[in-house]
Amino acid sequence: MMNDITKPTLLVDTRIMSNNLHRMVAKSSSNGLVFRPHFKTHQSRAIADYYRAAGVNKITVSSVEMAQYFAEDGWEDITVAFPTNIRERESIARLSQQVRLHLIADHPETIKAIAAWGIEGLGLFIEVDAGYHRTGVDIHDTKRLESLVDLVKSCDGVDWKGFLIHNGHTYQCRSKDQIANTSEASFALMARLHHYKQIDPDITISVGDTPSFSVLNDFTGFDEMRPGNFIFYDLAQWQMGSCDISDIALCMACPVVGIYPHRGQIVVYGGGVHFSKDRISLEGKEVFGMAVALGTSGWDASTQLGYMTSLSQEHGIISMPPEQLSQYRIGDLIGVLPIHACLAAESSGEYRSLKGELLDHF
Amino acid sequence: MMNDITKPTLLVDTRIMSNNLHRMVAKSSSNGLVFRPHFKTHQSRAIADYYRAAGVNKITVSSVEMAQYFAEDGWEDITVAFPTNIRERESIARLSQQVRLHLIADHPETIKAIAAWGIEGLGLFIEVDAGYHRTGVDIHDTKRLESLVDLVKSCDGVDWKGFLIHNGHTYQCRSKDQIANTSEASFALMARLHHYKQIDPDITISVGDTPSFSVLNDFTGFDEMRPGNFIFYDLAQWQMGSCDISDIALCMACPVVGIYPHRGQIVVYGGGVHFSKDRISLEGKEVFGMAVALGTSGWDASTQLGYMTSLSQEHGIISMPPEQLSQYRIGDLIGVLPIHACLAAESSGEYRSLKGELLDHF
Repeated sequence: MMNDITKPTLLVDTRIMSNNLHRMVAKSSSNGLVFRPHFKTHQSRAIADYYRAAGVNKITVSSVEMAQYFAEDGWEDITVAFPTNIRERESIARLSQQVRLHLIADHPETIKAIAAWGIEGLGLFIEVDAGYHRTGVDIHDTKRLESLVDLVKSCDGVDWKGFLIHNGHTYQCRSKDQIANTSEASFALMARLHHYKQIDPDITISVGDTPSFSVLNDFTGFDEMRPGNFIFYDLAQWQMGSCDISDIALCMACPVVGIYPHRGQIVVYGGGVHFSKDRISLEGKEVFGMAVALGTSGWDASTQLGYMTSLSQEHGIISMPPEQLSQYRIGDLIGVLPIHACLAAESSGEYRSLKGELLDHF
Repeated sequence: MMNDITKPTLLVDTRIMSNNLHRMVAKSSSNGLVFRPHFKTHQSRAIADYYRAAGVNKITVSSVEMAQYFAEDGWEDITVAFPTNIRERESIARLSQQVRLHLIADHPETIKAIAAWGIEGLGLFIEVDAGYHRTGVDIHDTKRLESLVDLVKSCDGVDWKGFLIHNGHTYQCRSKDQIANTSEASFALMARLHHYKQIDPDITISVGDTPSFSVLNDFTGFDEMRPGNFIFYDLAQWQMGSCDISDIALCMACPVVGIYPHRGQIVVYGGGVHFSKDRISLEGKEVFGMAVALGTSGWDASTQLGYMTSLSQEHGIISMPPEQLSQYRIGDLIGVLPIHACLAAESSGEYRSLKGELLDHF
């Protein structure tokens, strides 16, 4: 299979991926949580089939178009975990005739607009901000939270489903302990939402983020979990403390096109259009990926060759010690573990399994 | 047209774009240079037609696939300005039957591999590094340069075309003066190549990079120019000193989905999957785009609303002073000037003109 690779190719190790999936399924079961994984990470119907086989039938996506992609593949219960964009009324109305559709909102104007559409069966979550400060009603702003709950409950044509929280600030963590502390602080704040659940026992408290669900084991008080990135993991998650390097299920195979021993660098075909431009800071340097050895049966994450230290549109520059560099020749393949799995998958537009099968990407 | 926009939409102002194009065409004419613009910036057949109308018939691209895209559109003289990837022999052979194809190389293994293919009519440039240190033979390494020239000239099946240089280190500049100094230092080094031209007068010395060709006016000693980004410009080029803010021909229209007056932020639909994740440092902050007012006839680059200060997969966070923020409501559109035009275009996958026409992207 590797011999057939002519350009940057995003490889997925389905064995690692399946292990990541089953670990998360087990965690949802042991906590009695609904598992509604975020599909924005893989955006693939072929990969979605692995979830289906594991018993998943509810999913999360990040856009209406992505919801359509999976609706057409037979997924029937979909939450769009992105603030409802009221310019998309038509496609939302169409989609809600096909599937059980749940939207999110944190602003009275959005809620009123949705209510005015009068779309039957549309579920709505109020998005709550428990520390990330991207979107959502600030959990400390009790007055606004109450007024939104009152508004949603008073609106005909909107079916209030509960609260949705994404603790994205765990992405700032750099160890398992930090993730545990950050998550637990947010969870403590989220206890405020139980007050609403006492009044309306049928509502769902839905929580996201891969770091929390990778590291913690006890999710008492929640009803639903929505991690996404755990299916592949990546260097950013590894740096946060969410996973081991051997849990990363994606690797870009990149052809060697330049060798510069005097500056300890190899240039590969594989740049910003393949990886996106996400980066992490490691040992005081900006890093765009980690180079690893690639054999006929896959990559070996324990054989680290060096870091991708610069990225232009099509070029990737890998800095490498002389003993590693001297092993490579023009036309060889090097594996590169990506910083951000979601964006590398989005940029690549497709995957190849280690057996050579082509897997779709929305 | 703006009323029909439902999701992040990359707008192109064809009037600004045409002005940028004609300015560069005039500069190539006045210097007697062959103008071989880099099409990796726009990757659009519709936009390529503007070049054709301006008399351009030679182009540069950054991948073999991109060359194929333009070959199928009738472009007949194409340089792939990316180190030849010897794993792509088959598609290179196919393409060379369709067009006058020029490749680049800086490594003896690559040159020998190309020669061994025996593809008739294939042109080859030796890539020279005059300070950027990405790819190319170091211009100070006379011995290696001479041995590569000897190798290329001795190879049957390779037609030596000359030297190709990309002075990408001008991208580190932050003013017109810095660009001028950096370029002139590289140009002075490149005078070493004239020695080869005395021996082989038919070879071409081909120089790239938008900052140099935007700022300087005298290109004596070169034969060909290959700037690309000048067609759109972007915030990065503006920061370097290549252009005025009013020369930027691309703007992403983004729907407002969240308003947070207490933290001075608006959240728009428009994230990493639309802009890529390129960033610049401005006033000590990481910036992912500049928010500008958007009216029915286009954007107004003189009405700057604030900076995009954070970007996740689909969310863009714009920090805005209260007086600007208070003018926006949920569902409005905000314009965002991108950091890097090439990657925003690549991520968007299409453009819309201000008249609403859809323009293709490879």
